[in-house]
Amino acid sequence: MSIPFSEDALIVRLFAPLAGPGGLALKDDAALIAPPAGNDIVATTDAIVAGVHYFPDDPPESIARKALRVNLSDLAAKGAEPHGFLLTLALPDSLPDEWLARFADALGRDARAFGFQLLGGDTVRTPGPAMISVTALGLVPAGRMVRRTGARAGDYLYISGTIGDAALGLRLRLEPDAPPTLSAASRAHLLSRYLEPRPRNALALAMRDNASGGMDVSDGFIGDLTKMLGVSRCSARVDLAAVPLSDAAREAMALDMGLREIALTGGDDYELLASVSPDRAAAFEAMARAAGVPVARVGLVTTGDAAPVFIDVDGAPKSFARGSYSHF
Amino acid sequence: MSIPFSEDALIVRLFAPLAGPGGLALKDDAALIAPPAGNDIVATTDAIVAGVHYFPDDPPESIARKALRVNLSDLAAKGAEPHGFLLTLALPDSLPDEWLARFADALGRDARAFGFQLLGGDTVRTPGPAMISVTALGLVPAGRMVRRTGARAGDYLYISGTIGDAALGLRLRLEPDAPPTLSAASRAHLLSRYLEPRPRNALALAMRDNASGGMDVSDGFIGDLTKMLGVSRCSARVDLAAVPLSDAAREAMALDMGLREIALTGGDDYELLASVSPDRAAAFEAMARAAGVPVARVGLVTTGDAAPVFIDVDGAPKSFARGSYSHF
Repeated sequence: MSIPFSEDALIVRLFAPLAGPGGLALKDDAALIAPPAGNDIVATTDAIVAGVHYFPDDPPESIARKALRVNLSDLAAKGAEPHGFLLTLALPDSLPDEWLARFADALGRDARAFGFQLLGGDTVRTPGPAMISVTALGLVPAGRMVRRTGARAGDYLYISGTIGDAALGLRLRLEPDAPPTLSAASRAHLLSRYLEPRPRNALALAMRDNASGGMDVSDGFIGDLTKMLGVSRCSARVDLAAVPLSDAAREAMALDMGLREIALTGGDDYELLASVSPDRAAAFEAMARAAGVPVARVGLVTTGDAAPVFIDVDGAPKSFARGSYSHF
Repeated sequence: MSIPFSEDALIVRLFAPLAGPGGLALKDDAALIAPPAGNDIVATTDAIVAGVHYFPDDPPESIARKALRVNLSDLAAKGAEPHGFLLTLALPDSLPDEWLARFADALGRDARAFGFQLLGGDTVRTPGPAMISVTALGLVPAGRMVRRTGARAGDYLYISGTIGDAALGLRLRLEPDAPPTLSAASRAHLLSRYLEPRPRNALALAMRDNASGGMDVSDGFIGDLTKMLGVSRCSARVDLAAVPLSDAAREAMALDMGLREIALTGGDDYELLASVSPDRAAAFEAMARAAGVPVARVGLVTTGDAAPVFIDVDGAPKSFARGSYSHF
């Protein structure tokens, strides 16, 4: 953990107030985590790059929340409670101090809202685009992390929230007039879902107590589901008509049916995919309801290691040209 | 923790074999750490950027070792044993697969040599230069992490190894003829010290058992020592004649006295700075000797919060134009 000497003053002023007890006021080489007895630590890291994962002219507040939340989503999928994070900033010289001040302020607010503490980090100069890398540490009771490999034949497949909004929002950023007659409200909803993920940390306990397997859906529903079944050495039968869509997504698809594939395969959903054995399904649904997070049953895990079968609204299997949608 | 879908095959082939038990074969969203009872976790992160922290045409093996070792050095300074690491790679499209294969192979070998396991990571595309960010996790017995804030008036200051070789090596990379008559052996020594850090993990136990405060010296001896005394709210009297120099550094300085300031303030030493109370000094020296790491006593921690006083060979205080040397 190091910070270039010339930047100490700015970094200390902006980020030291965000440090939790384990961050030692950012005065040390390292952070200290004293794990409560009986807990495992879940560690995950995700980076976002300007021009790849976000638009350089996005508000710094939104970029801060995205950097943090894509990691919080992974912790939620594992059934873990947020503990703290390390932050690596690679910054171009062109970035004004005011940008960094707004970024730090929003990061601190969002971290507090999620019970997350800044533990430390590194700041480097780059001649390239800005990059923000977060390593997130969470806590789960020992042996209770929800594995991506845990899906078992006979499990129900659940997905939280709605699928495709962020991918459609990205599409609107790239082609604001496609479709041109989309209502302003739907447009705003889809754009906001791309700009800032809403991770499902409220669902972590329901995942931990009930899911046999799980992951967060960040690289596209179809591709990520295929990935989870693959590492679980199972297949699945998925009912595409049951995949939950927002009203805004439905409106967009009614105007342009080509958007449906983008919604199902596009990234940045940050919803949770869970496989739940039938005897835990009622408990999972009840805990999700209590947590205020909608979950929809979308399929059934089956034996064999064939690719999952996606049944379309017409009852016929549908295949997808690509499992996931690349970043722009 | 996520890996772009299109890169799964390459990443899995190259990096999954490096994953330790906590890395879950890189099949999950997250890594799992079950900390042994009675241990704290020490977490640190350091990133290196092509063209900033290393030369893009450095061998990929050296870049891999640098990325890992700058973090191992922080763990050593804290008295921690390496446990595992998360790796974030931001890669330009221009980087050939062969580069990545050589990088991964060297990374795996070096990790094994240090008892380190790959826990997970993220890979992103960047239109900018390559960047390699490592978050390192280490273990220390509960409450025993060596703090940067721990120096106390009356402590002796120790530095491991030799100071300035890497900074002089960088200088030789930038100006191969300065000084022109430097022997080939000295030139090779200094260049190698810049190319690949040699972290002092062998000294971790001596640090933990004896040092009241410590840090790794990565941003320049003068600047980092000043930093440690500052956060410890102490001052110091430092004997510059006692600062250990390699024969190669001595030869270079004899040819060009201007190199001395570069050696004392330049970065990339990756030596350990320790403050040790006099009653622990003999034990610290004995444990360092047993570990095969030379340590030199270079000063005394004093009261007050003035900047440390650096006494030159002529007995007069010396001031430095800058505390640390910027990256090129």
